[in-house]
Amino acid sequence: MLSDLEEKTIRRRTIFDGKLIRVQLDEVELPDGRTSTREIVHHPGAVGVLAFTDEGKLVFVRQYRNPLGKTILEIPAGKLEPGEDPKACAFRELEEETGYRAEEMRPIVSFYTSPGFADEILHLYEARGLQKGERRPDTDEFVEVEELTLQEAFAKMEEGQICDAKTVVAVYFWHNRVLGGG
Amino acid sequence: MLSDLEEKTIRRRTIFDGKLIRVQLDEVELPDGRTSTREIVHHPGAVGVLAFTDEGKLVFVRQYRNPLGKTILEIPAGKLEPGEDPKACAFRELEEETGYRAEEMRPIVSFYTSPGFADEILHLYEARGLQKGERRPDTDEFVEVEELTLQEAFAKMEEGQICDAKTVVAVYFWHNRVLGGG
Repeated sequence: MLSDLEEKTIRRRTIFDGKLIRVQLDEVELPDGRTSTREIVHHPGAVGVLAFTDEGKLVFVRQYRNPLGKTILEIPAGKLEPGEDPKACAFRELEEETGYRAEEMRPIVSFYTSPGFADEILHLYEARGLQKGERRPDTDEFVEVEELTLQEAFAKMEEGQICDAKTVVAVYFWHNRVLGGG
Repeated sequence: MLSDLEEKTIRRRTIFDGKLIRVQLDEVELPDGRTSTREIVHHPGAVGVLAFTDEGKLVFVRQYRNPLGKTILEIPAGKLEPGEDPKACAFRELEEETGYRAEEMRPIVSFYTSPGFADEILHLYEARGLQKGERRPDTDEFVEVEELTLQEAFAKMEEGQICDAKTVVAVYFWHNRVLGGG
């Protein structure tokens, strides 16, 4: 039996199978018996890392985002490789993008970025015990590293340079901790 | 001239043009002159609403999310109609989904949900002066309304029932305010 809210998938068609996403068109039966369609984007999932320096600054990367047509400031992040453990991915992406090697990764929260059309889940971690190493970004990845205080991060949010979900969550989480709630 | 981080789109192909999303495959020139492809999902954008009741509880909706295959708890939200003002959309979606009419809508923050592959922007508002009216959900939308204290919301986050970006941002924002930082 379906609950009062659940939908049942009647038919499923793959529209596009790319290197990052897979797009699927579902025909569904609604809780009242009528039918509708759902457009669904499958994504492998990703991690984001809050990495604090010894001076208490947070490490950001500046990166061009093609879907937005602009360069924005984000926490270090990257998508999961097939079968990869999210924590291992967090260690890897932090080092690749920023050169920082961390001693420890602590999970903070995981969330779906856009549950209306995508299954992407983002696992947020806090890196502890940073050691400066060497950056090794992916061959098609061009990033600049920037370290900001909380006040500077809020200013960049006001300006719209910090403007993506995981980084807004990171800044609010950081603020909570500074206020004594984290 | 391109900056050191920017990409240039060489070719653009529309893969799928649905009722909600449009999927596009771009061939891009990277900052170092090599080429790569980018898979991009276009989305009309959306709003999410923090609506506090007179008792200081926050209004949530429970909704089945097909991409996740489960029912989750979110703040009231919905996608922008073509040409719709985000604030007008916030008033409309809050009333449709919860029955609450608001006197005022105050913008909190806007963010891209998943800048690696989508251009969806989410505008977060705070509703003030709620008056209970009548719910009028979309014909293919089935939601249940639930009102929670901050402590209850954190418990639902721990349990994984609150698990999407906009709602996690909303709960952290609320916590900041309670701690005296908002």
